[in-house]
Amino acid sequence: MSEIYRASTTAPVNIAVIKYWGKRDPKLNLPTNSSLSVTLSQSDLRTHTTASCSPSYPSEDALLLNGQAQDVSGARTQACFRELRALRQTLEASDSSLPKLASYPLRIVSENNFPTAAGLASSAAGFAALVRAIANLYELPSSPTDLSRIARQGSGSACRSLFGGYVGWEQGAATDGSDSVAFQVAPASYWPSMRALILVVSAAKKGVSSTTGMQTTVATSSLFPSRASETVPRRMAEMQKAIQEKDFETFGKVTMMDSNSFHATCLDTYPPIFYLNDVSRAAIKVVEVINEAAGRIVAAYTFDAGPNAVVYYLEENEKLVAGLFKAALGDKDGWKGARGDKVESNADALQKAEKDAGVAVGLLQEGVSRVILTGVGDGPVKTEESLIDGKGEPVKST
Amino acid sequence: MSEIYRASTTAPVNIAVIKYWGKRDPKLNLPTNSSLSVTLSQSDLRTHTTASCSPSYPSEDALLLNGQAQDVSGARTQACFRELRALRQTLEASDSSLPKLASYPLRIVSENNFPTAAGLASSAAGFAALVRAIANLYELPSSPTDLSRIARQGSGSACRSLFGGYVGWEQGAATDGSDSVAFQVAPASYWPSMRALILVVSAAKKGVSSTTGMQTTVATSSLFPSRASETVPRRMAEMQKAIQEKDFETFGKVTMMDSNSFHATCLDTYPPIFYLNDVSRAAIKVVEVINEAAGRIVAAYTFDAGPNAVVYYLEENEKLVAGLFKAALGDKDGWKGARGDKVESNADALQKAEKDAGVAVGLLQEGVSRVILTGVGDGPVKTEESLIDGKGEPVKST
Repeated sequence: MSEIYRASTTAPVNIAVIKYWGKRDPKLNLPTNSSLSVTLSQSDLRTHTTASCSPSYPSEDALLLNGQAQDVSGARTQACFRELRALRQTLEASDSSLPKLASYPLRIVSENNFPTAAGLASSAAGFAALVRAIANLYELPSSPTDLSRIARQGSGSACRSLFGGYVGWEQGAATDGSDSVAFQVAPASYWPSMRALILVVSAAKKGVSSTTGMQTTVATSSLFPSRASETVPRRMAEMQKAIQEKDFETFGKVTMMDSNSFHATCLDTYPPIFYLNDVSRAAIKVVEVINEAAGRIVAAYTFDAGPNAVVYYLEENEKLVAGLFKAALGDKDGWKGARGDKVESNADALQKAEKDAGVAVGLLQEGVSRVILTGVGDGPVKTEESLIDGKGEPVKST
Repeated sequence: MSEIYRASTTAPVNIAVIKYWGKRDPKLNLPTNSSLSVTLSQSDLRTHTTASCSPSYPSEDALLLNGQAQDVSGARTQACFRELRALRQTLEASDSSLPKLASYPLRIVSENNFPTAAGLASSAAGFAALVRAIANLYELPSSPTDLSRIARQGSGSACRSLFGGYVGWEQGAATDGSDSVAFQVAPASYWPSMRALILVVSAAKKGVSSTTGMQTTVATSSLFPSRASETVPRRMAEMQKAIQEKDFETFGKVTMMDSNSFHATCLDTYPPIFYLNDVSRAAIKVVEVINEAAGRIVAAYTFDAGPNAVVYYLEENEKLVAGLFKAALGDKDGWKGARGDKVESNADALQKAEKDAGVAVGLLQEGVSRVILTGVGDGPVKTEESLIDGKGEPVKST
């Protein structure tokens, strides 16, 4: 029986504080503006991926995600496979003793530790894990920066999930995308007290896909060009400085303004794209009330292409922020476990908030289906835990 | 007993298709961009105002609106009184036989024929009627353009209610506001088939006032400058051409895009301003479905600083547009009367729409409290029906 080669990794989700929206090259996923995100802890949210190859596998590459066979014939997945194989071929060409892995069919098994129904952008973690796992399998000497260039072609924001902590994605200028790569602004350990509370909003279904949506925005929004050319470049600089200085007030204000700016360009699209709903707006209102009560910015909302709110805050303000949400939403799923147990429910703050924002609190109680408590975390981690057994068969994960 | 001088007018509501949002001079209500509106028929929506003056009145000017005494000490009302009195004084100075009306206290009684609770911007009709009524009382030779300059100081959009039909408001460049006046693009009779269906959305309460809101937008939105300097000037030209050519497709598309652009700059404000809610978005969705079914733009939504939808359409498409809304919302107030009786309920179209937009139709049925059917109409009309009797006392109107 032929040998089965295997390598595994986990990779994180990231949530942008300066949003990626708009491609200048849809094929290469080259963006119209730079972006910046916080990598979230993999103890709470991660994709676990095992890549394997073997001459004994059927000739078609195959990918199993959460137990479901996926189509790998799409241009994006193919681009990742092609680029990684090319790097492996270079290695093999320079050292003839290496097994010819690049020529073997790939079998990849991937699992998320969070519910797909949560509507979290899982493609970033998914493509980061896929690229990292194959790079491990092929024993490529590529840096995370090099891999970010490949993962970007799978899903734009995936490039940022190759790093931990606070991560930028430089839009770049080259037409071949060679300078459109992710870079680490600061590791998680530099500012480790960053926390994120995700309010998962029950939505009928996702509206416009982000790929379609962003291209329609580029084509039709008259406000979008100034966002891409003026607003974001300024905010990228402000945000990097805020992170360097661990200045949460600026971090929070720019995060909120950039989320609003992104959704404003969606609304300015024709036909308009709406990702925020009344529950999302209620989350904004409650964050505003929390900040007013604190007399400073201690909480910052941001929304991706969907209604879920992500609320960033620092551990030292946990009671003011997560504590109020726990008092309001303590009966929802997600408060159990080490992180949730630590959060002290803040009924007093909730009571005060309800004076100004009673309707908003009620909307959250009606519309939030679960919460996820997490914080800033590290980049992909190699693991020995394999999702494919020694015979090349998928392992049922726990 | 001293003589009581009286004059009465009615004045219309207008709903902008290119929105006014942002002041370059808050005191003079000078806008950061030009705007354009449709004047709505006074048979459906109007303010009726009687202005009177008499040496026998108590020395304080007084204003009664819908039976409630109003504060007239505000700078805006004072500016209108002052400018109109100055014009009267000029007349009196040139003809000593004229009674010295400018020196007499004013007593003004005003009534709207639509529910205040409807959340319709009544200040435009209100200030237009106030200025027109006093101009009639003073027998001023001022043109509607001259009066628009005065009414603008009361409420920006009031300047457009001095004309009927399709009305622009030129932003102007002079620091004293002398060139910031309304002008008629076309009279109602030029394109008389324009209809408007107003969906009145039950909202808890109005959020941010438009005066505060627009100044916060100017101060904080990074997208706003390009709207004011590029988007609106281009759309003003497109819209005037569309009206000249009676080109509803362009009229409708620009109307919808401009409403979205305005609300996008509200969302880009810090803190963000939300006037649209889930019911408003449902109205947008239903209009989109109507246009898709027609294969062309036959309906156009627009939203002022609140959740109410105004849907413009041409009389010839009444069954496609108002007919579908009547099928969905026929049990709401507002369908009775000559206009409503004419609308043929279109159950077939509704049934088809529900396939794509069932959730949206449901949201409208839950969230719309009443409808108002109207159309393009004329400017202020002098009337002999006085709201003040010969003794200077308010008359109970029918």
